[in-house]
Amino acid sequence: MGQSGGPTAVINQSLAGVVEGLQTGLVASGKVKKIFGMRHGVRGIAKDGGDLVDLSHLPAATIEAVAQTPSAALGSTRDKPDDAYCAQILEGCRQNEIRYFFYIGGNDSADTCRIVSEKAAEAGYEMRCFHVPKTIDNDLKENDHTPGFASAARFVTLAHMGDALDNASLGGIKINVVMGRNAGFLTAAASLARRARETDKDAAKRPAPHLVYVPEVPFVMDHFLHDVDSVYTKLGRCQVAVSEGIRDANGEEIGPQLMRSGEVDAHGNVQLSGSGALGDGLADAVKKALTPAGGKAPRVRADTFGYLQRCWPVTSPVDAREARGVGRHAAALAAEGDTGASITIERTSNVPGEYRSAFGRAELSAVARYARHMPEDFSDNGNNISASFYDYCMPLVGDLPEFGTL
Amino acid sequence: MGQSGGPTAVINQSLAGVVEGLQTGLVASGKVKKIFGMRHGVRGIAKDGGDLVDLSHLPAATIEAVAQTPSAALGSTRDKPDDAYCAQILEGCRQNEIRYFFYIGGNDSADTCRIVSEKAAEAGYEMRCFHVPKTIDNDLKENDHTPGFASAARFVTLAHMGDALDNASLGGIKINVVMGRNAGFLTAAASLARRARETDKDAAKRPAPHLVYVPEVPFVMDHFLHDVDSVYTKLGRCQVAVSEGIRDANGEEIGPQLMRSGEVDAHGNVQLSGSGALGDGLADAVKKALTPAGGKAPRVRADTFGYLQRCWPVTSPVDAREARGVGRHAAALAAEGDTGASITIERTSNVPGEYRSAFGRAELSAVARYARHMPEDFSDNGNNISASFYDYCMPLVGDLPEFGTL
Repeated sequence: MGQSGGPTAVINQSLAGVVEGLQTGLVASGKVKKIFGMRHGVRGIAKDGGDLVDLSHLPAATIEAVAQTPSAALGSTRDKPDDAYCAQILEGCRQNEIRYFFYIGGNDSADTCRIVSEKAAEAGYEMRCFHVPKTIDNDLKENDHTPGFASAARFVTLAHMGDALDNASLGGIKINVVMGRNAGFLTAAASLARRARETDKDAAKRPAPHLVYVPEVPFVMDHFLHDVDSVYTKLGRCQVAVSEGIRDANGEEIGPQLMRSGEVDAHGNVQLSGSGALGDGLADAVKKALTPAGGKAPRVRADTFGYLQRCWPVTSPVDAREARGVGRHAAALAAEGDTGASITIERTSNVPGEYRSAFGRAELSAVARYARHMPEDFSDNGNNISASFYDYCMPLVGDLPEFGTL
Repeated sequence: MGQSGGPTAVINQSLAGVVEGLQTGLVASGKVKKIFGMRHGVRGIAKDGGDLVDLSHLPAATIEAVAQTPSAALGSTRDKPDDAYCAQILEGCRQNEIRYFFYIGGNDSADTCRIVSEKAAEAGYEMRCFHVPKTIDNDLKENDHTPGFASAARFVTLAHMGDALDNASLGGIKINVVMGRNAGFLTAAASLARRARETDKDAAKRPAPHLVYVPEVPFVMDHFLHDVDSVYTKLGRCQVAVSEGIRDANGEEIGPQLMRSGEVDAHGNVQLSGSGALGDGLADAVKKALTPAGGKAPRVRADTFGYLQRCWPVTSPVDAREARGVGRHAAALAAEGDTGASITIERTSNVPGEYRSAFGRAELSAVARYARHMPEDFSDNGNNISASFYDYCMPLVGDLPEFGTL
């Protein structure tokens, strides 16, 4: 088994789930003798002689401690194996007599499972590959939601709850940049900070965040500046949540455009991810647009939440439980003789207070490579998130603190 | 009473403490008839006709709910009143027959209390001013530590704990910029993420964060790049914590120098606070220095923690308790006939597991204006934090999660 891509706060829950599921399933029945972990994903079996760690005899206390630990305990990788790379993976499996392959990751990891499965079949080597879902972006097809998302969403919600009060206490315009190159789910979670299902069409009458921009809705700079101006003029403050991947009607990302334009004093570097460039560029644009001729510039600040979103050590309880569950389900399917699948999460009850989910399976090819976007009805009015997203996301993030006011 | 300066996660605990202390003290004894809150600090009594809110009859449940809420419930201000402004404050107090003045804030707030006290004495108006300490920077004189610091320190510690594992899983160099223009206490809290009292002189043998730079120790770019290179070469990864206010041997801040130099692709804007400029500039410098001629650049990322540090809704229990306590103590001193003071925190036991503190008083003039810096023995080796800081800070931040490894 291995872990791949950007880590999450609960990716080790899935690792623990696979190990537990194997211990009570294929290992207990004698069909599997050893459990190996690949260090740094498929690199651990395909590169430089491999780097496998024996997980066969992990004590329950160690499994539980690792499960509670954020980020990938086996290490991760950004490698996206092609055919040749997958042939090396298969060769590594043959050498170690590996017949089951569990890969915890996003759609690239599902694709790796798919290619390795096909290569094994071509070579007549019996091998069963299972993709265990993981991504804070929440962008896997065939899933209601994905492990890792809810904990990151909880961070984004809590951050906006506290930051809204900070913004209210000193006034001005605050822009928060949230992870998400293509899917806006995580940025949309900022809207849960309102603790209100329905919000006003007039952004100034909504609880903060007043404005939310996601990659699925084309970003128009003039509309954005108008929206911010309108809220700030009425309230003396404005909190904005923005996806790092917002783009214009042509699909071109806003961040690089701000940097190139020279109209704002923003970064010149090309590396956008993991930099404060988009937030600072938007802040500069707002300051420029909202400063009256000869007048005083409004207070404008930007925070880019960065990597804390995916590795904050306090998780959503639902997320932790489901991440464990998809790992166990993968091992259970393997024990039942499934020849390879991607594990899925289905929501079976969304009645308030009675949220329930179930694990299922999809073909690897149905999940591999393709990314899911936010459904259209989750966006609202070009600068807001709908009540249907609230209903979707609130059961996932866990209890939120209650605030008092004077 | 009012709240001033950058809010903290526990500044409302102090507000609640003052209200409770008055209710059971001066109000119960009949010496005070009404409790007013100033909206947005002294602006609420001195500007535009004032904006006072009656807090005389707050139910206990409301007080408790507000106490648990981050940021300044009355609103805050960045105004630093001079003599003329303080005369307006005094005039507002006279008009409302106010005889006690409680101001929750940093050293500027203590100075406001001092000036208002002096103006009242000059005018023969009996008036008692109490400064209630608050600052995440931990830079007030006469105090072991200040309310607000420990909760922010807890955030910084947890963030580095999770981020260290994120950095380990994918490798590369990670730079985290922490608040603190002049005092390094908050950045030093990153070192608690190691969960180890003693650390190696060799940065590569320390648990992450491997390197910590504070404003009190002159920052030498060549040494920094050498430090990072040395750790990265040995481990394939390096986690760095940096204060936003790091400066060179001449006392000049590094951030603006990076922006002006043109050697790195950083921001051109002057606004450093609340921007990602320093982190991105340092990341660019590291990338440039560590990329071999014709070779591949290392993975370098920077996060600027920003405002989340001071408004994260989950606090340190010690901090919440002490912030409440300094508010109550101020009201108690007033009831005892104290003619005006700044409340202080003294540590009375630092035995592990038996941390205790007591509240005291200092003259307003002893706290006003002057900022405290980190004691020299908290820094170590130019790029590290000492075991004595560990002993100092660990009792304040509360329980930390235990992590597992494979």
